[in-house]
Amino acid sequence: MSHRVMIVGASAAGLRCAARLRRLQPDWKITVCEQATAYSFAACGFPWVLSGEIDDLAELRSTSWGALRDRSFFEDVKGVEILEGHRVLSIDSKDRSLEAEGPDGRVLLSWDQLVLATGASPISIPGQPEHPRLCSFHLAEDVRRLKTALIRGEIERVIIIGAGLVGLELAEAFRSLWEAEVILVEAGPHPLPKLLDAEAGALLRRELGKQGVRVICGCPVEEILADDKGVVVRCPAEAIRADHLIVAVGVKPETALAQLAGLALGRTGAIAVNERLATSKPNIWAAGDCIEVRHAVSGEAVHCPLGSLANRQGRVLAGVLAGREERFRSVAGAMVVKVFDLTAAATGCSLSEARRLGFHARAVWMTTDECAHYWPESEDVHIQLVWEEETMRLLGVQAVGRGRVTGLIDVATQYVLQGASIDRLAGLEHCYAPPFAPALSPLAVAAFIARNQHEGLCCLSPLSKAGRRHILDVRLPSEQKLRPWADALHIPLEELRGRLAELDSSVPWLVICERGTRSAEAVRWLRERRLDARYLGGGMIWRHSALGDGA
Amino acid sequence: MSHRVMIVGASAAGLRCAARLRRLQPDWKITVCEQATAYSFAACGFPWVLSGEIDDLAELRSTSWGALRDRSFFEDVKGVEILEGHRVLSIDSKDRSLEAEGPDGRVLLSWDQLVLATGASPISIPGQPEHPRLCSFHLAEDVRRLKTALIRGEIERVIIIGAGLVGLELAEAFRSLWEAEVILVEAGPHPLPKLLDAEAGALLRRELGKQGVRVICGCPVEEILADDKGVVVRCPAEAIRADHLIVAVGVKPETALAQLAGLALGRTGAIAVNERLATSKPNIWAAGDCIEVRHAVSGEAVHCPLGSLANRQGRVLAGVLAGREERFRSVAGAMVVKVFDLTAAATGCSLSEARRLGFHARAVWMTTDECAHYWPESEDVHIQLVWEEETMRLLGVQAVGRGRVTGLIDVATQYVLQGASIDRLAGLEHCYAPPFAPALSPLAVAAFIARNQHEGLCCLSPLSKAGRRHILDVRLPSEQKLRPWADALHIPLEELRGRLAELDSSVPWLVICERGTRSAEAVRWLRERRLDARYLGGGMIWRHSALGDGA
Repeated sequence: MSHRVMIVGASAAGLRCAARLRRLQPDWKITVCEQATAYSFAACGFPWVLSGEIDDLAELRSTSWGALRDRSFFEDVKGVEILEGHRVLSIDSKDRSLEAEGPDGRVLLSWDQLVLATGASPISIPGQPEHPRLCSFHLAEDVRRLKTALIRGEIERVIIIGAGLVGLELAEAFRSLWEAEVILVEAGPHPLPKLLDAEAGALLRRELGKQGVRVICGCPVEEILADDKGVVVRCPAEAIRADHLIVAVGVKPETALAQLAGLALGRTGAIAVNERLATSKPNIWAAGDCIEVRHAVSGEAVHCPLGSLANRQGRVLAGVLAGREERFRSVAGAMVVKVFDLTAAATGCSLSEARRLGFHARAVWMTTDECAHYWPESEDVHIQLVWEEETMRLLGVQAVGRGRVTGLIDVATQYVLQGASIDRLAGLEHCYAPPFAPALSPLAVAAFIARNQHEGLCCLSPLSKAGRRHILDVRLPSEQKLRPWADALHIPLEELRGRLAELDSSVPWLVICERGTRSAEAVRWLRERRLDARYLGGGMIWRHSALGDGA
Repeated sequence: MSHRVMIVGASAAGLRCAARLRRLQPDWKITVCEQATAYSFAACGFPWVLSGEIDDLAELRSTSWGALRDRSFFEDVKGVEILEGHRVLSIDSKDRSLEAEGPDGRVLLSWDQLVLATGASPISIPGQPEHPRLCSFHLAEDVRRLKTALIRGEIERVIIIGAGLVGLELAEAFRSLWEAEVILVEAGPHPLPKLLDAEAGALLRRELGKQGVRVICGCPVEEILADDKGVVVRCPAEAIRADHLIVAVGVKPETALAQLAGLALGRTGAIAVNERLATSKPNIWAAGDCIEVRHAVSGEAVHCPLGSLANRQGRVLAGVLAGREERFRSVAGAMVVKVFDLTAAATGCSLSEARRLGFHARAVWMTTDECAHYWPESEDVHIQLVWEEETMRLLGVQAVGRGRVTGLIDVATQYVLQGASIDRLAGLEHCYAPPFAPALSPLAVAAFIARNQHEGLCCLSPLSKAGRRHILDVRLPSEQKLRPWADALHIPLEELRGRLAELDSSVPWLVICERGTRSAEAVRWLRERRLDARYLGGGMIWRHSALGDGA
């Protein structure tokens, strides 16, 4: 390894790499070439500048002690040179040089090692017009413009296309502070269709609805029109009008320079790298949202543009360049998003994704207390667990609740990454006290339920229709009234053993309760008596939280 | 395996075992023999009955849907027979029988498999008198009596001996609802001396002090006197008076029956079992607070009476008895406790414990944001990480903060159990969004800091005295005023490169900042210039939160 390192892109990955490499190699020349003049924003915070949680964009460019991370900060404190306002025009991988255009014209820059940290850019919808009433939500400039328009009262009604992570955060931002009318249009069947299954997605959809967001799912956009008076989005069923439109249908890796340099792209269209973050050409490396990574469940290359991964990649790459034995290994794709009062987090694969990948995958659903059930502030948490039937390997976990569900998903992530079995998860050790957790970890309990499912004690999705099954409700009368299921036979669990004769043993049963605990107990007992019975996974609480009175 | 299982003790372990075994073996005869007539309390909730968070003791005996877990519940719903009010007098392991005394006299009961789930009982202080003004805090009866006395206004001033988990929870209970004067007396050097090191312990001590609890550490009790007017606790320095005294110095395994049955006890005095929870005699098993388990760090048998482990053991033992290939493996001892507004959690070994075990162990300290640093509601969290120097194996983590730190400790627990290295922890994947976590996991950052320490970029304990070191404060002037260190040389990090000449390079330096981030950066830079410099781990925020104005 030699001594002049050029990093293209002052993103999370690029700057992390630069700063750590300086620490590891105090004598090297480390330069970051960045086309913008303002950079180093913590872009994940943009939605909260709009929502007012964060007063000013500058906070996202500052350290925890309030220092602005501008050129002089990086030079004086981090010892890294920044060529700001320099756009790279071409890369010569043989000569090890690049040409860039800056404020003072073109410059030719030599390097021994080149790092591409060019990030990603927003995807457009085919035929998307260019108009001031339309924007993506990607750059500081987008935030600034939207906030100005909101302050001026120019946006009373806004359409967001895409109920992905950014779309969801924006829906809250527009609604909570500005009380704008928000219409969220999603082509997939539910919010976060790539990350969640229908059961968890429906929880988010209902929360959005309760908070006044109109959510239209399964809705492809056919045409977008914009003029000075407003925007119109034409969908198969209707034409939606608003003052402003935000396209938040995801990002694509920024690979123009990589292609100029002749680097191989992977199957996702992002830059292909190995675990050392080396590209297909010697001495050229890449990190951040422009690369693809390996998914721990599928083993496939995926484009996973998450800030947490970009930061880690930048750090690892600095280690690699400094000659350390570091690698960036497979990812589980752990993610979390705040949707008004709900938190949704997931890791690994959803059931639909696992099946698309060819796994013989199954799922269970549970509703549980986040703390000891008698703890007064305990919140419900809804957990879906996905595993491969033959190997009992854990493939993924989704969790949605009012509390902080990240702790559960962070733990599950470690098991997904190891390809651990459901049975190992069942032996999980966790820290327990009544204000913080139940005595058995909810993840362990989910694993017990999965093991039961494997052994024939089966739950159905909380969104299931009764179909040909008769409904047996084993709740107390007071509970039945709160979240009713019409036409159910009511026998509280406590009385079931004595009232078995009331059940027609020639028909199949779906047993329901609040959370899926009592109904599972009932099903076990009915199955011992050779009845065909299943229970509603996650119980009526999940079902009702997802479907409301339409349950 | 055969068909009559007798379980002694309707504790968490015993009842879990009974209920699951019934599910796995519907035709077996399963009996629980319990000396009390009220049982199946979630005893971990007792402190919050006292504090008023939980209205009534009965809530701790109820399911999440409000059903009382009494004999008829276990018989009708769980299919388990309970012999309540039956005290076991003797066990004949050859004949496979036991004699018990119940309300109707003595009975002789036969079994094929016997499970001892006899729990633990409170440790007394040598010479502790018997008097109504003295009690342990272990049984429902203790809670009832204390609550009655509080309601009657009989306890205005209370002494708690022992700042362990129960002592800390009780201090809050007496203080927060009843505004009693609380004096907490601890023989060890700080609260939770067996679980935390001095740095984390000092954070709890300060919090207790701020909440009006008088904490006396390093204070052995020499004598306890009690009469109708009150109690007196004599310590070397003073005699403390109060209306009531609670002895909360821990529990010991209840092994009287095990000894009657001729079972081997382990080095801790608890019942020795293997991973299948088998005792030294065939067909006799044990689970819960009466057994010892293997610690993942030391490999030694330890007595670890935690509700989470007892519940898991009961479950595993049911699987074992039903013929399944289940095991109860080593534990990391993960624990968490609420101390007023702070949460303290830990896993693995503390530094002092690791050194006592003979490890060449080291530690680092960090103060970090729980969320993205710009998130307005982000709380500080203080983390100590302990590892073995030769192997870089993670030995333990402690975390204290105002938010929920359990997620961090739950993840760390998985690494401790695997004997993972610091470098594996550094590659941790976590779920990230600004309201939930920083972009790099605090655990990963702690691992980076440990790696730095290993490579010579060293921090000192946040409780350190300056000693021969001169103090360099690299904070901004506004920060210095808030949490000052007298006689420090002040050079903000941003100016350090230009003002190097102001530092005497012939003396050793201790560099300080708010959290340990900037000071580490400064130390790295000073070391490159061959100065002898270390930084204050966890920074002035930790130090000040632990020592207050005495910092």
